[in-house]
Amino acid sequence: MSARTEPARGMRDFLPEDVRRREYVIAIIKRVYERYGFEPLETPAVENIDTLMGKYGEEGNQLIFKILMRGEHEATGKADLALRYDLTVPLARVIAHHQAKLPRLFKRYQIQPVWRADRPARGRFREFYQCDVDALGSSSPVVEAELCAAVADALTALGFDDFVIRINHRQLLSSLLSVAGVAPDRHGDALVAIDKLDKTGADGVRRELSQRGIGEQSATAVLEFFQSRTPESELDRLGGFVGGDEAGQAAVENLRAIMTLSSSTSAAGRIRVDASLARGLSYYTGAIMEINVADLAGSLGGGGRYDNLVGMFLGQSIPACGFSLGLERILVVMTERGMFPPTLATTSADLLLATFDVADMPHALRLAALLRGAGVRVLVYPDAEKIGKQIKYADSRGIPFVGILGGDEIAAGTLTVKDLAAKTQHSYAQDAAGTAILEAVRRERM
Amino acid sequence: MSARTEPARGMRDFLPEDVRRREYVIAIIKRVYERYGFEPLETPAVENIDTLMGKYGEEGNQLIFKILMRGEHEATGKADLALRYDLTVPLARVIAHHQAKLPRLFKRYQIQPVWRADRPARGRFREFYQCDVDALGSSSPVVEAELCAAVADALTALGFDDFVIRINHRQLLSSLLSVAGVAPDRHGDALVAIDKLDKTGADGVRRELSQRGIGEQSATAVLEFFQSRTPESELDRLGGFVGGDEAGQAAVENLRAIMTLSSSTSAAGRIRVDASLARGLSYYTGAIMEINVADLAGSLGGGGRYDNLVGMFLGQSIPACGFSLGLERILVVMTERGMFPPTLATTSADLLLATFDVADMPHALRLAALLRGAGVRVLVYPDAEKIGKQIKYADSRGIPFVGILGGDEIAAGTLTVKDLAAKTQHSYAQDAAGTAILEAVRRERM
Repeated sequence: MSARTEPARGMRDFLPEDVRRREYVIAIIKRVYERYGFEPLETPAVENIDTLMGKYGEEGNQLIFKILMRGEHEATGKADLALRYDLTVPLARVIAHHQAKLPRLFKRYQIQPVWRADRPARGRFREFYQCDVDALGSSSPVVEAELCAAVADALTALGFDDFVIRINHRQLLSSLLSVAGVAPDRHGDALVAIDKLDKTGADGVRRELSQRGIGEQSATAVLEFFQSRTPESELDRLGGFVGGDEAGQAAVENLRAIMTLSSSTSAAGRIRVDASLARGLSYYTGAIMEINVADLAGSLGGGGRYDNLVGMFLGQSIPACGFSLGLERILVVMTERGMFPPTLATTSADLLLATFDVADMPHALRLAALLRGAGVRVLVYPDAEKIGKQIKYADSRGIPFVGILGGDEIAAGTLTVKDLAAKTQHSYAQDAAGTAILEAVRRERM
Repeated sequence: MSARTEPARGMRDFLPEDVRRREYVIAIIKRVYERYGFEPLETPAVENIDTLMGKYGEEGNQLIFKILMRGEHEATGKADLALRYDLTVPLARVIAHHQAKLPRLFKRYQIQPVWRADRPARGRFREFYQCDVDALGSSSPVVEAELCAAVADALTALGFDDFVIRINHRQLLSSLLSVAGVAPDRHGDALVAIDKLDKTGADGVRRELSQRGIGEQSATAVLEFFQSRTPESELDRLGGFVGGDEAGQAAVENLRAIMTLSSSTSAAGRIRVDASLARGLSYYTGAIMEINVADLAGSLGGGGRYDNLVGMFLGQSIPACGFSLGLERILVVMTERGMFPPTLATTSADLLLATFDVADMPHALRLAALLRGAGVRVLVYPDAEKIGKQIKYADSRGIPFVGILGGDEIAAGTLTVKDLAAKTQHSYAQDAAGTAILEAVRRERM
């Protein structure tokens, strides 16, 4: 009897070398976020279904994994729970639920998986990690500037030197659409279409605008505006286009403040206004950001201000803004570019401890405890097989040293240590072996 | 409008101080496991439903969270996916699926959440973390001994000094039941009943044995055996009871080998044979272990040998043995006993950087970048509020230092640093401030 062994569609197993790469990236991102005063938060993978439904737009609702009711209710086929779809909506729920315990200015990061029943594709999975960083309680543009700086620092620390942060403003988009003659109740639809400009081109956007009931003339005005962009003086052009629209002008000023502040941060020279940036999610209310590198279709991450989302849970608005980096996207690019340090392809252990007689195993376990106490990672080979087989195993696992504990060594209180790369061997007193092995490991790593 | 804000039933949000405690425990466990040559593995939260169903017994099937099919199939009310119920079955699947990439002796650890639709209770949640450590490819008793040693080292490193590891053997239980006259096809049922001896007492077990169709006489023989235990010479008593039953004698010898090896490890003095230990899961085939402390009903962890589970996926048996620690249980006891180091109740940042004029914000961001580059965790207060309000905020968040950057400081290229605990303040040149603050933080921590 044998059964299906693949992971579920769009999901992946991470073997040791995969986990090490993921943990390397996560550790760097965490360290940078903590330098900015962000604190860790974690939420459950499973949420009440009404917490998630209706927060991500119509497309989002369909991509949410829903969990069947249990026991006597299972047969109803109804769902009461759902898998986390992003880290922002759960954050808004947490802010509302734990308000009394949280400071009025709350800066948190959260690095956890989310699940979307999307069609799997290269770099797009059904389980993927988001690395989110959000600040709640302030509407100052310093918040946006610091978020962009933190993300820029994180990417720089990972070795990226060619990313671009694009920034736009939801209110500005709204004003642009109004000026172009799109009715307010069609703005959401229009944004979903415009968001695909890079993917589907002008014709695709025009088609989708038409399908979504936006008139020919408005579509032309919108597309003309977005296709004639000149990044250098974009803010002035935008100010000109929205003209007397007050909300539009306020948005332009907000973007100007963020850009000015950003010229004093690590995002300087990397951030630029792009009026065609729309972002798919429906909860944004202010600045929106996205981060790209040339060799990746799609973004490394994105975010924005969402001043009304907490209010949907709390009944009272709390200003909020955040940025999310996609771990998988970062890993894809880093792997293709060879950006991981060579020491990461590290071994499962520093030393394989080999014995040849079952009767010697208690000695081996005592010695292993001594070496581990000194800090050596020791794999005790559990079977008293031939030395050649044990050495071959160590070699195949990249374990650099093999400790040989035979009858002679036990009698003399020593350990013979083979250096597999240098093809040398040394004998050490057992109580000095730990330090010696650690030093040898350090030398090999350099 | 406001909505329900609680997390789903039996699930929890982890605020920053919770996450820090969890990460502290996980980091120690990982370090110990790596000292033993275990490598990290991660699997998806979601599995194909047939991967999980039927692996955990009848009770398990009912506790699995099932995920509704999507799109046009959603209305059928059928489930095709399910949430990970433990880390052992996914490991068996991984071993079968990635066999060509994995070494024949594979030692892995895995620290991830699992989900069970259990009735929530104190210390029992519907989402909880397991810290698993398993070795595949060897049937040597060294495997069991090293697993017990690794877990003992991990608990010792966390500060536990009073845990007991109980060990038993599935084959021995089976022989005991046969000798007591329980028919082989009732062994599984009998084990489920015996496993509850500590919880429900002898009468409860007798009732359940009877309900599960086990005769009065066999039930009496079983209970008499388990109630007359004398831990010191347990192995001899067991050997005597099973008499000529070959499989039973082999199990006694296996336990004896594990106990002898364990006397050379950190589990020495902590491990004892307990013939009443049954373990609920159905996939065990050999030694089974459980770890307890006096002040916790239920165990801190448990495990055992499961030589046939991989075969259910691969069609070919691979010897396997593992141990799982329950993170939540460990946290409950450590919290109640006050076992966390005081420095863990750490702050969100080392320094709050305060300004009083929006126009000074670019200066503040540049200085923050400088300080962060030196290693200081800096929270830039995003609004130019009154100094008293900003200091109060720092105080409430446990941030020990407040850096004041007003017009005078900007003109002089300095930073005034208030030490909130000592109620002192110093002025530093901006490019020397980072080192000075880090030193002061270190002093305060000591």
